[in-house]
Amino acid sequence: MKALVYSGTGKVALEDRPKPTISSPTDAIVKLKYGTICGTDLHIIKGDVPTATPGRILGHEGVGTIDEVGSSVAGLDKGDTVLISCITACGTCSFCRKGMSSHCEHGGWILGNTIDGTQAEYVRIPWAMSSLYKLPETVNLAEAVMLSDALPTGFECGTLNGKVQPGCSVVIIGAGAVGLAAMMTARLYSPATLVLVDVDNSRLETAKQFGATHTVNSKEPDGVERLLDLTANRQGYDAVIEAVGIPITFQLCQELVAPGGVIANVGVHGKKVDLHLERLWDKNISITTRLVDATTIPMLLRLFETNALNVSRLITHRYNFGECEKAYETFKAAADHQALKVSIEF
Amino acid sequence: MKALVYSGTGKVALEDRPKPTISSPTDAIVKLKYGTICGTDLHIIKGDVPTATPGRILGHEGVGTIDEVGSSVAGLDKGDTVLISCITACGTCSFCRKGMSSHCEHGGWILGNTIDGTQAEYVRIPWAMSSLYKLPETVNLAEAVMLSDALPTGFECGTLNGKVQPGCSVVIIGAGAVGLAAMMTARLYSPATLVLVDVDNSRLETAKQFGATHTVNSKEPDGVERLLDLTANRQGYDAVIEAVGIPITFQLCQELVAPGGVIANVGVHGKKVDLHLERLWDKNISITTRLVDATTIPMLLRLFETNALNVSRLITHRYNFGECEKAYETFKAAADHQALKVSIEF
Repeated sequence: MKALVYSGTGKVALEDRPKPTISSPTDAIVKLKYGTICGTDLHIIKGDVPTATPGRILGHEGVGTIDEVGSSVAGLDKGDTVLISCITACGTCSFCRKGMSSHCEHGGWILGNTIDGTQAEYVRIPWAMSSLYKLPETVNLAEAVMLSDALPTGFECGTLNGKVQPGCSVVIIGAGAVGLAAMMTARLYSPATLVLVDVDNSRLETAKQFGATHTVNSKEPDGVERLLDLTANRQGYDAVIEAVGIPITFQLCQELVAPGGVIANVGVHGKKVDLHLERLWDKNISITTRLVDATTIPMLLRLFETNALNVSRLITHRYNFGECEKAYETFKAAADHQALKVSIEF
Repeated sequence: MKALVYSGTGKVALEDRPKPTISSPTDAIVKLKYGTICGTDLHIIKGDVPTATPGRILGHEGVGTIDEVGSSVAGLDKGDTVLISCITACGTCSFCRKGMSSHCEHGGWILGNTIDGTQAEYVRIPWAMSSLYKLPETVNLAEAVMLSDALPTGFECGTLNGKVQPGCSVVIIGAGAVGLAAMMTARLYSPATLVLVDVDNSRLETAKQFGATHTVNSKEPDGVERLLDLTANRQGYDAVIEAVGIPITFQLCQELVAPGGVIANVGVHGKKVDLHLERLWDKNISITTRLVDATTIPMLLRLFETNALNVSRLITHRYNFGECEKAYETFKAAADHQALKVSIEF
């Protein structure tokens, strides 16, 4: 089969690889139909993820059909259309049983990291019963891929951790795919103010189309003042969602959080940040971090099936799997291409 | 009347001052019976609290009797014995109405800070109906003073923010009065492991007497390793309570928190700290900060009245108000005197 392989720092290549086989009774083999590329894949290629070594087939998102199941897999049959969760969950360890499958003792984020991933014609999914979700016939499969990772990440790490509630004020720093996913799911809770912040005006324009009540370019010298002006008594935001992952954006979050508010970190950080406890110790705030647990996929699927999530807008570019290297080039230069998520069809 | 006055950086002095009078219909005048000194009073004397200016009567804790009430005060009468909350709460602003009286728009921490405080024979308490609590005749009044600030701070900022639950693991950094108050209230939730950490062995000995399951001196070179050894699979603690307020102890918290755990900051910080998001972004943790709201005083009073809180152990030294300057000297050198809280009798 063809597979997209991380072949050393800075490089990916389409290669021929053997088709995976069932190695445990709880496995399933999935034949891919649609996939995508995640910012984390780019981190791997940059060499930022030491657990992912050269030779690894990348990818942790996808939709496909069941090709084969292990002997202990029930409820999934050859030919079923399934969504692949970015998080592999054994379902029985202490972390899975408290809903924190991100830290599953036998899984977690392993696909395209410590085991071969979904950017291939076939993929082996361990713990298939708790890591795959059957899809109804009626849904758009290319769009459903957004529920593998981007949507649950924005929802769980941003909206849920940020405790977004009706009538509250929300600011999201970073209008990339995950920031917009946070926005789409934050809207489910009817906040009064929902502000998107970025340094790229075209992304801010997209954010407006997605339903932001306001947008602010944080490069502008009065950006912080304008952001505070949008809040009650200039006291700041109830929920501040960080969807970038660099020190300067985390700093901005600290300037924008209201007393009693939450900073929900979504961004993948490569460096430590300054935390201004000398100002924040008495502000009754929370800061949360989270690797997505993907436990909300069933809830998101119900919303998706009823068209309550406008996922299609996230897909800006479409490629066939044979063009996967080109898709990486586009996604690497996302700002130049005004790219959010690229769809890959097998 | 006599009053203990902050008289410029490093200095306090007993002075003669006019007895306070009712200035608003919601005020009460309280004649002090017992008081104490807080670490925050020392911060003021060091010049760390710019809102507290020289000439201010210090103190935000105390027990006394009502001397006079304003015309709109109901339910409090001359002669009633009352506990003074460290937080003055109007009870009607948006913060008070969501239980965050620390940020009350007309009060908050004002006593001994922006208005004259409790280290005086008489004190004016604004918003008396929501800032004073009637005490039953039967309780020990010197001990009740611990419920003005130390106990609610340990409870709200440490135990409640730390989400301490039955069977969980708790580590408290700092075995001073507030750290021990956090410990006493954490025990109400029956954690499986309750570890106290300090650099002072005599404080750790006290912590054992208070009921710590383990104590560790963090100065010892293998301190972190020993602390991790006490946790399931060496994964760290569910609740990490910071009760010191310096960068090195906040750093220790980050090394001790389990995936899915909470760092509950109680300490008053004067400097920024490093936050290692490059390690913590995917650990599903929370960091909380809080100025005490003192909204749990009624709950703590019920426990105190039934002897469920061993508050007496917190009082290590006793002085008459005339010796208040000496009490400050003792409290400033708390480690030398093995002092936790000093009791001041009027």
